[in-house]
Amino acid sequence: MQQPLVGIIMGSDSDLPVMQEAAKILDEFAIAYEITIVSAHRTPQRMFDYAQTAEQRGLEVVIAGAGGAAHLPGMVAAITALPVIGVPVKTSSLQGLDSLLSIVQMPAGVPVASVAINNAKNAGLLAAQILGVKLPAVRQQVNAYKKALEQMVLEKATKLETEGLPSTL
Amino acid sequence: MQQPLVGIIMGSDSDLPVMQEAAKILDEFAIAYEITIVSAHRTPQRMFDYAQTAEQRGLEVVIAGAGGAAHLPGMVAAITALPVIGVPVKTSSLQGLDSLLSIVQMPAGVPVASVAINNAKNAGLLAAQILGVKLPAVRQQVNAYKKALEQMVLEKATKLETEGLPSTL
Amino acid sequence: MQQPLVGIIMGSDSDLPVMQEAAKILDEFAIAYEITIVSAHRTPQRMFDYAQTAEQRGLEVVIAGAGGAAHLPGMVAAITALPVIGVPVKTSSLQGLDSLLSIVQMPAGVPVASVAINNAKNAGLLAAQILGVKLPAVRQQVNAYKKALEQMVLEKATKLETEGLPSTL
Amino acid sequence: MQQPLVGIIMGSDSDLPVMQEAAKILDEFAIAYEITIVSAHRTPQRMFDYAQTAEQRGLEVVIAGAGGAAHLPGMVAAITALPVIGVPVKTSSLQGLDSLLSIVQMPAGVPVASVAINNAKNAGLLAAQILGVKLPAVRQQVNAYKKALEQMVLEKATKLETEGLPSTL
Amino acid sequence: MQQPLVGIIMGSDSDLPVMQEAAKILDEFAIAYEITIVSAHRTPQRMFDYAQTAEQRGLEVVIAGAGGAAHLPGMVAAITALPVIGVPVKTSSLQGLDSLLSIVQMPAGVPVASVAINNAKNAGLLAAQILGVKLPAVRQQVNAYKKALEQMVLEKATKLETEGLPSTL
Amino acid sequence: MQQPLVGIIMGSDSDLPVMQEAAKILDEFAIAYEITIVSAHRTPQRMFDYAQTAEQRGLEVVIAGAGGAAHLPGMVAAITALPVIGVPVKTSSLQGLDSLLSIVQMPAGVPVASVAINNAKNAGLLAAQILGVKLPAVRQQVNAYKKALEQMVLEKATKLETEGLPSTL
Amino acid sequence: MQQPLVGIIMGSDSDLPVMQEAAKILDEFAIAYEITIVSAHRTPQRMFDYAQTAEQRGLEVVIAGAGGAAHLPGMVAAITALPVIGVPVKTSSLQGLDSLLSIVQMPAGVPVASVAINNAKNAGLLAAQILGVKLPAVRQQVNAYKKALEQMVLEKATKLETEGLPSTL
Amino acid sequence: MQQPLVGIIMGSDSDLPVMQEAAKILDEFAIAYEITIVSAHRTPQRMFDYAQTAEQRGLEVVIAGAGGAAHLPGMVAAITALPVIGVPVKTSSLQGLDSLLSIVQMPAGVPVASVAINNAKNAGLLAAQILGVKLPAVRQQVNAYKKALEQMVLEKATKLETEGLPSTL
Repeated sequence: MQQPLVGIIMGSDSDLPVMQEAAKILDEFAIAYEITIVSAHRTPQRMFDYAQTAEQRGLEVVIAGAGGAAHLPGMVAAITALPVIGVPVKTSSLQGLDSLLSIVQMPAGVPVASVAINNAKNAGLLAAQILGVKLPAVRQQVNAYKKALEQMVLEKATKLETEGLPSTL
Repeated sequence: MQQPLVGIIMGSDSDLPVMQEAAKILDEFAIAYEITIVSAHRTPQRMFDYAQTAEQRGLEVVIAGAGGAAHLPGMVAAITALPVIGVPVKTSSLQGLDSLLSIVQMPAGVPVASVAINNAKNAGLLAAQILGVKLPAVRQQVNAYKKALEQMVLEKATKLETEGLPSTL
Repeated sequence: MQQPLVGIIMGSDSDLPVMQEAAKILDEFAIAYEITIVSAHRTPQRMFDYAQTAEQRGLEVVIAGAGGAAHLPGMVAAITALPVIGVPVKTSSLQGLDSLLSIVQMPAGVPVASVAINNAKNAGLLAAQILGVKLPAVRQQVNAYKKALEQMVLEKATKLETEGLPSTL
Repeated sequence: MQQPLVGIIMGSDSDLPVMQEAAKILDEFAIAYEITIVSAHRTPQRMFDYAQTAEQRGLEVVIAGAGGAAHLPGMVAAITALPVIGVPVKTSSLQGLDSLLSIVQMPAGVPVASVAINNAKNAGLLAAQILGVKLPAVRQQVNAYKKALEQMVLEKATKLETEGLPSTL
Repeated sequence: MQQPLVGIIMGSDSDLPVMQEAAKILDEFAIAYEITIVSAHRTPQRMFDYAQTAEQRGLEVVIAGAGGAAHLPGMVAAITALPVIGVPVKTSSLQGLDSLLSIVQMPAGVPVASVAINNAKNAGLLAAQILGVKLPAVRQQVNAYKKALEQMVLEKATKLETEGLPSTL
Repeated sequence: MQQPLVGIIMGSDSDLPVMQEAAKILDEFAIAYEITIVSAHRTPQRMFDYAQTAEQRGLEVVIAGAGGAAHLPGMVAAITALPVIGVPVKTSSLQGLDSLLSIVQMPAGVPVASVAINNAKNAGLLAAQILGVKLPAVRQQVNAYKKALEQMVLEKATKLETEGLPSTL
Repeated sequence: MQQPLVGIIMGSDSDLPVMQEAAKILDEFAIAYEITIVSAHRTPQRMFDYAQTAEQRGLEVVIAGAGGAAHLPGMVAAITALPVIGVPVKTSSLQGLDSLLSIVQMPAGVPVASVAINNAKNAGLLAAQILGVKLPAVRQQVNAYKKALEQMVLEKATKLETEGLPSTL
Repeated sequence: MQQPLVGIIMGSDSDLPVMQEAAKILDEFAIAYEITIVSAHRTPQRMFDYAQTAEQRGLEVVIAGAGGAAHLPGMVAAITALPVIGVPVKTSSLQGLDSLLSIVQMPAGVPVASVAINNAKNAGLLAAQILGVKLPAVRQQVNAYKKALEQMVLEKATKLETEGLPSTL
């Protein structure tokens, strides 16, 4: 088994449908990762231990998703020197605006890299971009990914231009 | 020196002008308290230790003030079984809406008792009300405080009714 | 029948599905409570009487839930010296942001302890934490509850770590 | 002394600079009013008495201004059958959005007529429009006021059109 | 046929499910009203004519509902001296926050009496309260309505207190 | 005197400091315009007349600025077939969010072209771009303006790159 | 085939159900247009080329729709001197408030004409109004469209006035 | 001169007082950087060139600050495979909420790492954390920085605990 380079954690198993998108993109890039549940509020000691050992266990990036008063990304960032990416999970009442502000508005000295609400795929991509700083092969993958994305849109554009608007939308 | 019953903590010494209002009201009620700086983000170990020892050190209530991605009240509440009162400190960009949502939107299982933005005085009063559950003398003080508050408004009302609108406002 | 220590009130019977979570957690802690409907707007006299007699009737904490222009928690807090916990009930148009601001933004002198939107379970837990100031057995229960919560998350984490991501989410 | 037809109340004397605009416009219309301080939170009994006697004391409309968790207009509306006009007073942190939502989002059965944040002048005018339903002379005054307002704008328009943009703004 | 005292207008027939609640409550109070569609944006001339003739046609109050950039209530208020009640209709994207701000934030000189988002029932009640200034019988009805509302809540409270929480919610 | 092609109107002379930026840019482009005060709320008849005669008077574009419940742009757009540009003027309480939503959230059938809060300069530029559809010389001016803007930034960039950060900011 | 005068572009084919409303209204006005997918983020080079050639290819107006961090309208406006209309597409978490602010809050020098969230029909109408500056026939169509819209509302109003409220809504 | 590893860019020289904090922290860490002005809206070609050559010129991370409809970070991220950190600059009307949403709400496939409003210092620190993935010495510096930050807070805490509340705040 490969040394995981990215740790994906989330505050609750109810966040799995959102957070697995980060895992999928890392799978696509063949980047080794670990994924588990770490709740800042319900397992504070585990959160503390997870963050404090992350660097020595060989992780290079942590992706943390949480909703509402989302403290997990910020607390992990308080403890480890690794870059921490925060994923604000959409909530039922305030639609994730609470999660976003709880994650992004960190005080000077302790940054969290916030991505869009529910956008764990982008957290995975950002982790790949960060690893690309060290691993030229990963940066090449990111470049290839961007090209493929562009190609996919170009094909859709061509389809729309040649076939016209679908008759039933 | 009396055993402190209330711990007042804040994320930064820049929160002192706001948070000292909690101390003042406890002084007024002659309730012993301790006041110090505990940053969830910059001193996570100290935060952890503070919360973990709060109960055994004889505290009965914790008042925690923080701004922005305000994680201090929620993290202390994650660790101690004591009631935790959160004071959302007003911020320069989002006016404390970020602080409020970061403090109040806690997940099921770990409550924080949030008061209004910048309203540390009310945090102190709420601590007194909570102590009043145990200490009849304190509840009496709360009742007296409410009467005095009422009296003060009644006097202002009488003044306005008898003297009329001030000529220069 | 035991002396109720907590009064759970709500502005409308439509709030019952939300507010019963407070009752459930108190049941779990074997804390005696009363639960009823008290509308600040439609039964102001009843609200007034309820709040004014709460202390002498032996209640120690009041939990009040309301939505929209949610005045119930603040008005009860205006009248009684007991600690009042407010539950902002989610609304159909503004998602409970109106309820939250109506409850939490109380003026100096009259605090309400606000929990998260729709989070009546946390209101029940906060009531238990407050009672724990007086009743060591309840504090022990809160400590045990926190341990059980932690254990539950640890088990889910172990399951995810050993079984991996579910194939269908 | 004339029987006051309008009661102007506010939660705090700090609201006077805002609320006196309602008084001024009523003075301009020669409509008798009373003005005083009634705090829903700090003088709940007085608020109750004020609202309960308003109709029998001959008032026809109540104007109530309050800020933050602004419960005064809604509570008065809960108790009296008179029309109640609410003035959301601007607050230092949330700029009056909290006051507005606390006042306007009343539940079915208990309306408050909300005007704009800090716009007590409009509350006074609305009171005049309501009195105009009963008193033809007041309606005439409202019609005249609207004409004068129009005239004033027309004059400013003419000035701008003939004199052009001021050289220093 | 009775002289209508209240004019209920709305910007679009899609607002009918919301606005008919105003009509229902006026039916309940046996207050004569007219109800029709007047769009400020799509029938500006009709809006102008409607507002300009409202007073001479014998109306005493206008209730206007609209959503989004909701200009109908404010424009009618610009033209007539009658009191105008605005109903902010909930919108699909911004949930009626846009409607509310477009209606309530009127400039000094031209008030609109705003009720809660989608709360046309309260607009009808407020119209009754305003008519009650002139018609003692209507004020009596409002008083009776408030008593009935109170009674209904008291009965629900008694039911909950005697029967306890429903087993299935 | 040249036939004005653009009409700049505003709800109040207090909007002049903001709205004159539209005039300045049109002066810079040597596009003839008229500028005056037209209040939808205080001079509804004038607003109606202004909008109804705009096309026949030779105007091609209308720029309308207003704040709060900002109805002027939408009402003018309701009446004329000319393109209408709306400038949301910043307000003291809600910072122009109310103005923006009142202007931009127009219903299907009656568009207003909204620019940024207080950005009357962009309203002037947009008017020039629209006139450029008809007048090639104006489009050339817009192209030149964009080039000059680019040049100005390039010079500032060069200055920063060669001189480094200023020692005192 | 006619020279297209309007270019309709969108960031993703998932925006088609919203954006085709712009196409429909242009079809109704018999205004030639092209419609395709251009993503600022996934096909930046294509976006650049599209904007840079728009003028020389004979387009007169560009309509650009995008959601979330909606950069397409603003970037096209940065590159071309043509008027650019932005359509903020509703998003699942923040309901299009993010799209709206990303589109409308453009800096001085580079305007985008924003319409309401999801209101591509109005973008099409605004394009027609802009073309009407050059093409008298199109302006006539806009005038006719406005008349038809008015007529449609008048008929619905008559129906409601003569038939009364529908028995089942 | 050292090869710059971080590129700091901003949309306007008015952003310098905010953005220089990123430069200061990189100076403190002795990390080579370049700093200049690149406007997505006013110099789109320069933005395009900057982003397209960033990787080949040896940069490893880009920090981009912008306000309002802040497109710079997202557009650079669209073009380069390097990790891009966005700094939402506070704006005068919407306080930076517009900047934040324009930067953070990026679509799937093109992440931007957003930090808090105006918090360029954290952008610099995050860049250091990212470089730490490749450069062990920088990671050591980050660890040391965190320790120093902790130490500073501990000293302030000790001062407050020993000296008590300052007499004049």
